[in-house]
Amino acid sequence: MALIVQKYGGTSVGTVERIENVARRVKGWVDRGNQVVVVVSAMSGETNRLIGLAQAIDPHPDPREMDVLVSTGEQVTIALLSMALQKAGCDARSYTGSQVHIRTDSAYSKARILDIDDARLRHDLNAGRVVVVAGFQGVDEQGNITTLGRGGSDTTAVAIAAALKADECQIYTDVDGVYTTDPRVEPKARKLDRITFEEMLEMASLGSKVLQIRAVEFAGKYNVPLRVLSSFDEVDGEGTLITLEEDGVEAAKISGIAFNRDEAKLTVRGVPDQPGVAYKILGPIGEANIEVDMIVQNIAKDGTTDFTFTVHRSEQEKALEILRKTAEQLGAREVEADDQIVKISLVGVGMRSHAGIASKMFETLAKEGINIQMISTSEIKVSVVVDEKYLELGVRALHDAFGLEEANPGA
Amino acid sequence: MALIVQKYGGTSVGTVERIENVARRVKGWVDRGNQVVVVVSAMSGETNRLIGLAQAIDPHPDPREMDVLVSTGEQVTIALLSMALQKAGCDARSYTGSQVHIRTDSAYSKARILDIDDARLRHDLNAGRVVVVAGFQGVDEQGNITTLGRGGSDTTAVAIAAALKADECQIYTDVDGVYTTDPRVEPKARKLDRITFEEMLEMASLGSKVLQIRAVEFAGKYNVPLRVLSSFDEVDGEGTLITLEEDGVEAAKISGIAFNRDEAKLTVRGVPDQPGVAYKILGPIGEANIEVDMIVQNIAKDGTTDFTFTVHRSEQEKALEILRKTAEQLGAREVEADDQIVKISLVGVGMRSHAGIASKMFETLAKEGINIQMISTSEIKVSVVVDEKYLELGVRALHDAFGLEEANPGA
Repeated sequence: MALIVQKYGGTSVGTVERIENVARRVKGWVDRGNQVVVVVSAMSGETNRLIGLAQAIDPHPDPREMDVLVSTGEQVTIALLSMALQKAGCDARSYTGSQVHIRTDSAYSKARILDIDDARLRHDLNAGRVVVVAGFQGVDEQGNITTLGRGGSDTTAVAIAAALKADECQIYTDVDGVYTTDPRVEPKARKLDRITFEEMLEMASLGSKVLQIRAVEFAGKYNVPLRVLSSFDEVDGEGTLITLEEDGVEAAKISGIAFNRDEAKLTVRGVPDQPGVAYKILGPIGEANIEVDMIVQNIAKDGTTDFTFTVHRSEQEKALEILRKTAEQLGAREVEADDQIVKISLVGVGMRSHAGIASKMFETLAKEGINIQMISTSEIKVSVVVDEKYLELGVRALHDAFGLEEANPGA
Repeated sequence: MALIVQKYGGTSVGTVERIENVARRVKGWVDRGNQVVVVVSAMSGETNRLIGLAQAIDPHPDPREMDVLVSTGEQVTIALLSMALQKAGCDARSYTGSQVHIRTDSAYSKARILDIDDARLRHDLNAGRVVVVAGFQGVDEQGNITTLGRGGSDTTAVAIAAALKADECQIYTDVDGVYTTDPRVEPKARKLDRITFEEMLEMASLGSKVLQIRAVEFAGKYNVPLRVLSSFDEVDGEGTLITLEEDGVEAAKISGIAFNRDEAKLTVRGVPDQPGVAYKILGPIGEANIEVDMIVQNIAKDGTTDFTFTVHRSEQEKALEILRKTAEQLGAREVEADDQIVKISLVGVGMRSHAGIASKMFETLAKEGINIQMISTSEIKVSVVVDEKYLELGVRALHDAFGLEEANPGA
């Protein structure tokens, strides 16, 4: 008998019929002798409906009240799914985040889970019940309702799996696994059977939106085996298993190609080169709570330096405004912004032990006439920023060059 | 500085615009130097939408899950109203029933409030905030979400007013007060400035749906002055004040005429007269959780008796089925049911000290050729059951006969 935590996203519970499908699927796992905790999101469209109501009152509503409002979305789903499970002959009980003490900090709309009281969950599981928990929400020390931010239901599922030491945490979504790249961009993209937490983290942070980053971090930290599955397949497939182990991954140097269209590039040109330039430029950006992704500082010529970094497109204007002030104080020549860019990244733990991945990447792009604007590397990733129009060409060329359509690609 | 608890029903918060109107009204009370707690219902239509979702899954959903589901309705409203208050420049904070520990028993969908922890409420009021509380819901000893049943928001407001020893509990609704009778039946119906709890209880139990019965009972028990007001008036009127005191009510013998179209009459004829007949007939009805209203047992003739009682129309079939079995066991002659009836009642505390009210009532109806099928009296009420078709005629004749259109009617 295994203890499994399953998470179903908004699309999977988007209608009463789909909720009934989820109930049948859960019952299948129970009938096969497993204990099951189910974490659900709000029915698709519901969260946006609620946000719409709030914004009709105030474009910038109070974050505490916003969390009180949107947390009702998951509460509706847990009740409906529990009813559907009972109708299907499966004893079930629903709990809000507050009821099972998913304790978080008080950062409304982006709270972090501190701990989970698993006593209530264990009690119901031992009584033979399926436990249905509202994802995405928690409660702070003072009893205020908090939410984990969009996609936070994945994190809830992983945190519960960790608290219960579950055998597996299954994330049901609208895709049947993690792919070598987005199949809409490269039709030859292949589903991966396995991927490591680190690789998945890089893929997720680069815009492969299968799983929420924090959920993968959490799973990695507590070594919770994560599996991505489709809730639309008639019969459960194998999906993609995300684990710590790298066995069998050794041969594969590259797991996949991720890309991100949501960034904008900002450049300060002609900054008098002096110690602390990076801090002086990025300090005010950080103070304004703008997250910076890639950072490149070119080698100084004629005593000046060019400094470039990327931020989320939605924060480009705000960042630009701050940057103009900083540039003036520093006596820089000019400030530029460009949002017609895309970041493409090769990801793979195999990279660690194999040289030449980066240069093969650059060579492939050069052959296609794609100019590289920025480069950034980590232990298991090489990212480049190129003109947005080269997205499809670049991804396909790299997918080909690294042989990703085959199961055991070589460098 | 007064401490006021206000309650706004579903129609009053039915749209974002109406919620903003409520915020302006509440701010007016705050600006005039009052401390305000606001209790709100779900936006009109929302509870029915949620019930529809549940019934699409199961026509008889689990009561516990049903309460988890429908309690989201008020949670949406408290968040939106708090946002609107803040937008209007009024510091506000929302709380679910569970958050302010509105502790109830575990009777899902019809829970009773046991107590309220007023510490949180007082803390926010003293900090200069408006406190917005979800009506209709509570939490049981085990932390399960409960609801008080439809209309329970009135009870929440009164219970909070009692716990805080508020100066007044104001129930905002879509009518501007309590009337001598339903103005749709008798256009000459007059708004009452005052009415006693007892009278209001009789009016409410007889189908004048301005306030929920349990709320009035609660208010009477804890002597919380209740005021019914319209949330659609531009400027707050005086509404109708419901109090313990009878001063100024002395002259008025009759406060109003209530009626109820929701009952059905059941009769067992020719029951062999013996001790315990009433118990033998009503016992099985009570065991089936069917509420019985009026009961009449005719004087026995030829050793048999006729036994008649009324139940809610929705339970007529169920009651009839039980009654047929009982009648057979008792050797009764026949069983009859009639749902083409209406109960009309005169209500007034003045009745206590004035004889002749009942006979004047019977006389008035007789003059109009209205046959009385059942009679039942209490200290402050006389009720008759007549054919449904006489509803309008009967109410208007009585309204006239007792001079209710004038401010100080005589008997």
